[in-house]
Amino acid sequence: MSMKKLVITEMNYNKEAYAHFGTKFLIGNGYMGVRGTMEEYGAEYMPAVNIAGVYNLASPEKWRESLNAPNPFFAKLFVDGEELSLPNSADKVVFHEHKLCLTCGIHFRKTTFKTAKGNVTIETQRFASMTNFNTLAIKYSVVSDYDCLSKIVSGIDGVVWDINGPHFTSFNVTDNVVTGICDSGVSVTTSAKDIPFGDVTNSKIENGEKSTMNELSFSAKKGVEFGFSKIAFVQTSLDDKISKEPRKANFLLKYDDLRNEQKQYWEEFWKNSFVSIEGDEKAEIALNYSIYSLQIVAPRHANALSIPARGLSGQVYKGAVFWDTEMFMLDYFILNDPKTAKTLLKYRVDGLKGALEKADREGYNGAFYAWESHEDGIEACSKFNVTDVFTGRAVRTYFDDKQVHISSAIAYGMKKYVSMTGDYSILFEGGLDVVVECANFYLSLLTSRIFPKAGSPRKLEILDVVGPDEYHERVSNNAYTNRMAKFVFEFTLEALNIAKKAIKKNPSLYPFPESLNALKAGLKKIIPDMIDPKVNKDGVIEQFDGYFDLEDVSVDEVRSRLKDPREYWGGSNGVAYPTQVIKQADVVTMLAIFKDEFEKETMQANLDYYEPRTEHGSSLSACMYGLLQCFCDVPDCAYPMFLKSAEVDIVAPKKLWAGGIYIGGSHPASWGGAYQMLVYGFAGLKHNTKTKGKSSISFDPHLPKHWKRVSFNMTIEGKKYSVKITHDKVELNQI
Amino acid sequence: MSMKKLVITEMNYNKEAYAHFGTKFLIGNGYMGVRGTMEEYGAEYMPAVNIAGVYNLASPEKWRESLNAPNPFFAKLFVDGEELSLPNSADKVVFHEHKLCLTCGIHFRKTTFKTAKGNVTIETQRFASMTNFNTLAIKYSVVSDYDCLSKIVSGIDGVVWDINGPHFTSFNVTDNVVTGICDSGVSVTTSAKDIPFGDVTNSKIENGEKSTMNELSFSAKKGVEFGFSKIAFVQTSLDDKISKEPRKANFLLKYDDLRNEQKQYWEEFWKNSFVSIEGDEKAEIALNYSIYSLQIVAPRHANALSIPARGLSGQVYKGAVFWDTEMFMLDYFILNDPKTAKTLLKYRVDGLKGALEKADREGYNGAFYAWESHEDGIEACSKFNVTDVFTGRAVRTYFDDKQVHISSAIAYGMKKYVSMTGDYSILFEGGLDVVVECANFYLSLLTSRIFPKAGSPRKLEILDVVGPDEYHERVSNNAYTNRMAKFVFEFTLEALNIAKKAIKKNPSLYPFPESLNALKAGLKKIIPDMIDPKVNKDGVIEQFDGYFDLEDVSVDEVRSRLKDPREYWGGSNGVAYPTQVIKQADVVTMLAIFKDEFEKETMQANLDYYEPRTEHGSSLSACMYGLLQCFCDVPDCAYPMFLKSAEVDIVAPKKLWAGGIYIGGSHPASWGGAYQMLVYGFAGLKHNTKTKGKSSISFDPHLPKHWKRVSFNMTIEGKKYSVKITHDKVELNQI
Repeated sequence: MSMKKLVITEMNYNKEAYAHFGTKFLIGNGYMGVRGTMEEYGAEYMPAVNIAGVYNLASPEKWRESLNAPNPFFAKLFVDGEELSLPNSADKVVFHEHKLCLTCGIHFRKTTFKTAKGNVTIETQRFASMTNFNTLAIKYSVVSDYDCLSKIVSGIDGVVWDINGPHFTSFNVTDNVVTGICDSGVSVTTSAKDIPFGDVTNSKIENGEKSTMNELSFSAKKGVEFGFSKIAFVQTSLDDKISKEPRKANFLLKYDDLRNEQKQYWEEFWKNSFVSIEGDEKAEIALNYSIYSLQIVAPRHANALSIPARGLSGQVYKGAVFWDTEMFMLDYFILNDPKTAKTLLKYRVDGLKGALEKADREGYNGAFYAWESHEDGIEACSKFNVTDVFTGRAVRTYFDDKQVHISSAIAYGMKKYVSMTGDYSILFEGGLDVVVECANFYLSLLTSRIFPKAGSPRKLEILDVVGPDEYHERVSNNAYTNRMAKFVFEFTLEALNIAKKAIKKNPSLYPFPESLNALKAGLKKIIPDMIDPKVNKDGVIEQFDGYFDLEDVSVDEVRSRLKDPREYWGGSNGVAYPTQVIKQADVVTMLAIFKDEFEKETMQANLDYYEPRTEHGSSLSACMYGLLQCFCDVPDCAYPMFLKSAEVDIVAPKKLWAGGIYIGGSHPASWGGAYQMLVYGFAGLKHNTKTKGKSSISFDPHLPKHWKRVSFNMTIEGKKYSVKITHDKVELNQI
Repeated sequence: MSMKKLVITEMNYNKEAYAHFGTKFLIGNGYMGVRGTMEEYGAEYMPAVNIAGVYNLASPEKWRESLNAPNPFFAKLFVDGEELSLPNSADKVVFHEHKLCLTCGIHFRKTTFKTAKGNVTIETQRFASMTNFNTLAIKYSVVSDYDCLSKIVSGIDGVVWDINGPHFTSFNVTDNVVTGICDSGVSVTTSAKDIPFGDVTNSKIENGEKSTMNELSFSAKKGVEFGFSKIAFVQTSLDDKISKEPRKANFLLKYDDLRNEQKQYWEEFWKNSFVSIEGDEKAEIALNYSIYSLQIVAPRHANALSIPARGLSGQVYKGAVFWDTEMFMLDYFILNDPKTAKTLLKYRVDGLKGALEKADREGYNGAFYAWESHEDGIEACSKFNVTDVFTGRAVRTYFDDKQVHISSAIAYGMKKYVSMTGDYSILFEGGLDVVVECANFYLSLLTSRIFPKAGSPRKLEILDVVGPDEYHERVSNNAYTNRMAKFVFEFTLEALNIAKKAIKKNPSLYPFPESLNALKAGLKKIIPDMIDPKVNKDGVIEQFDGYFDLEDVSVDEVRSRLKDPREYWGGSNGVAYPTQVIKQADVVTMLAIFKDEFEKETMQANLDYYEPRTEHGSSLSACMYGLLQCFCDVPDCAYPMFLKSAEVDIVAPKKLWAGGIYIGGSHPASWGGAYQMLVYGFAGLKHNTKTKGKSSISFDPHLPKHWKRVSFNMTIEGKKYSVKITHDKVELNQI
């Protein structure tokens, strides 16, 4: 397959789709994401230059969230005094095309308006520079098929779209520079330089309270392009803290040069990271779209930063970092860009302080990571995270204080990074502390009944949690949570052994406190006493104590009970709560992670049981089902799950609301999940480090019938491999 | 004060008040209660002959509830062909009086209709015989001030008011006898005999599908009374099981004889149980109304039966028995009618089987008594006990499976009975098993964290419960529940000692199993390890873990957040849930029970803190606040609480709905609470059995300022005393 096919296109203008297209046509460079909205859109159509890792709280009754920078891509066209813009002039549109070139990382737009005198066409191309992290660029061209007098208002729009804003309480506006300043002192500056082309008759700058606008007047001849190119720079007061190198505005940069750099970057990138799926162009495009999408949110500019659950597509979910990163996205980076993988994990090292504080606040020891993490591990999750659609009241939810499996995801991320990269350095850069404190956290969660029910052994239990299926709050002995807690104990022992060996070789590396020996002894004693999950006669693992006793009805039946489509399904008033219907993979995720501990029959029995009971109300769900289906050797069942994950942001979204809260935006975990399905599921990659420290790479492929060949590169333990898999053959070559 | 004042009267007809008056003018005899509705009312105006202890489930999607018998008091008047009935002829009413004579236990009604020709007056008197438990009697007289032709349709109406019915799926109707038969096989038969008086011109019986009606025609002369008297009998297929003696229909009984017996019974009764409050007629009437009300629901006919939370006023709360009996009503019976007190407790002995089964079902040992108990301790409480008013959906509630303090109430009832009556026999008639199994239950609830938070000792906790304040579901270490669990352990030790001593004297009494010695040792070890309640700097005890962190707003503010007055305040979507506003006394109940363990300052600090945060949304609340206010020596603050409790069913109800469920009906716990306030609070009775087995009676009176003298009789340890208390003097005389 040739690379030129990696283009996402939408024809025709659809006013209603602005939110979806803003996400689907996202560009970005890790420092920021820019939504694929039209240049002329104001805040009501959700344009955003969403900045990574910079947060603010606008007022106490609102939620802390990431910031959107003043928008330097704003531009509006007037021809012979008539405004030609969307959506106002939608009735004049005779051609419209929206394009995202994944091959070159550029967003294209072309719109032709039919006026009384003839046709006027706007063409734009724009990108977020992958090589200059604070830099955006746009070229805006107009051509008319008749002579006219035109004006383009091009500028920096400081009236940004905010969900829990407005954040900027004061502005500093000078020619071509807008600085928005928050009460917290955090500020964001956008500066830009327009270089007009064509027959410019006048140019003046109008500075408003929040915006600066360049009014460019043209005397346009039929068929002769006019317009401008613009280089823009976004800087924040936290750049020095977050970024590896200071971000400066460099107005010497030229649009064409930047564009060439951009094309080169992506060319190099795809050489390494393109995944070829011969026999399935649709799947190939979707998966590479996922890869593109992960890459444009990768925090390559930072030492320690992670990826929000909605990427850089806006402020949905507060721009916060969830378990999504470690559980779903991390593998892509480990196998393609280990440096960024380490950056993601170092974010958690920096977040340890917040996690220790949260544990203390909630009455536990160790590290209780934020369910919705902001900088320094601050918990951004409200205890009232859902709005009741009938009363408008905030409802007490338990995402932050009961979804205790979050800390296990961090440890699991460490484990994956260390074993697959072979790079233990993270452990000595704070990672070991993270792992140990996660273990301490789960130890402090363990409870035991003094006089258990007659006939039952006295076991260690974890009560009153929320598992991955968030619809059932406050459950006990969630199988996933319990197994992950045990994993943390196991990996802590492993990490302590690794550390001890390394310290033996190099005593200056790290001080190994004696208390850790006590911890080791304690963990060894504890692990066998942990309660086992309950299993029914068919081998189905009960998701939590009492789950099998809940009403057993179909997802459709539960859906039919909704009185308002925006209702939250979970929580004790939700339609799913009293039933066995779950939001997303829970037991299935556990089985996918610990697949080597279960028979195929058990995994299949659990798939058969849980799949029809799963709403897949989270984009994290399909890929886990798909992975397990691959492990059960039914890749054709897995295939729709794969497409669902990879295409999540390509197809129109089904569910934009949960309990009154807008949840649109992009789905990095789903992209990462699709990638995992490809590599671990269909290709069947196994990386085993267990045998006497020696690692091995093997494949147990399960290709869908209609796939001919899957090819990709990957890096394991510092070595780069090319992989080619057909139905008959596996080729693994170091390159 | 003379006894003739003990009359409750309502003048004027108020159509809307039918539900309230049905409750307020209740008559009954323990076997059944008859609502104070008009004779001509059909099911829509909630007449009921509500039977004690007989339950049925109409269909799986409904709730099990008590049964209403076919109504033998039905009668309707026609004068010259014109129906004169309420509410249809309300516009013709020129006089209306509704009266309940507490002194004689008779309900009176008088209504004068103005017709085109003149006035027609109906007068009725009716009662439930206190001496013939299955017997009802009515006298129905009419007099007109002009000559007329009249017809009275008098019969047995089988179309009964049901909440979760209809229960009777088939009927057997013969002349003057209606039997309603449930699918379960349970049947209820009402038979009746009309004896007309006046100039009867015709009499014929019409039997319908569910009813039998006697059409009595009269040629009435101006000023000459006509009508009928009727003796009716109610029998159920469970009479032999429940009642001490078989219930027969005895048509030889005459109305006047029965009425004389009734008057004699009540005369005797008041001689013993009247409480005089000199200086406060209102309080005196209200308290004696409470005493009357308790007496008409006392199961004197049964060996082992208890009183439903809504008495015998209908099927509200399923006709089920709650903790109300042991915590609120029992003391009245202990001090006035110890035999009935024992009957109430024997109900719990019979219910042990159900309690053991419930504990097993819910994963515990021992006896987990039903939150809403039906016969044999069957749990009648639904796990979906509240309806969301916005969606119409049943909401998962935790009354049955988390309100674990219920079992402690049973043990507490045993303790009160044994110590105040001095009668240990209940222990050897199953009571000791009850107490021991309650202890086993609480033992199995105890959990411990293996690695508690750094700096905290490892303590035994009770997690995830619902305390008396039901608005906050699923809380941990509810101070009341924990203290009551400890009480159960303490009383179990005491009861075992009592039993051991008694067995030593009389080895044939009871086999004392060796395992109980182990239990004793275990309890002694456990008690000191139980977690102490958290106390703030002012001595305020935290209701449960995290209570002080909840939003601290006023009851009015919380009420103002309701979007629908029928909303349930509790549960995680309720307005009270995220706040410190509580439904009813919780910590305060604990302090009132264990008052000797606390300083007066502590009790006052807790009153000051909790009272403004209490909605008093339960009729169980005011009396506990009032009691504690007496113990804090502020009886004038307690006085409004006393009136609120004693007058609960006299004044118009404020709240008839909770989460879409009708909760009207009478309030026996509130009557009993008012009685407790009088005896323990204002009179300050203390009965102490602790000193070397020797008991003592003392008084620490706290009379409200305007009270002159309180006088009452009581029976303690088999001895009857008269008590007279003024502000200066206490007189206690054995009589």
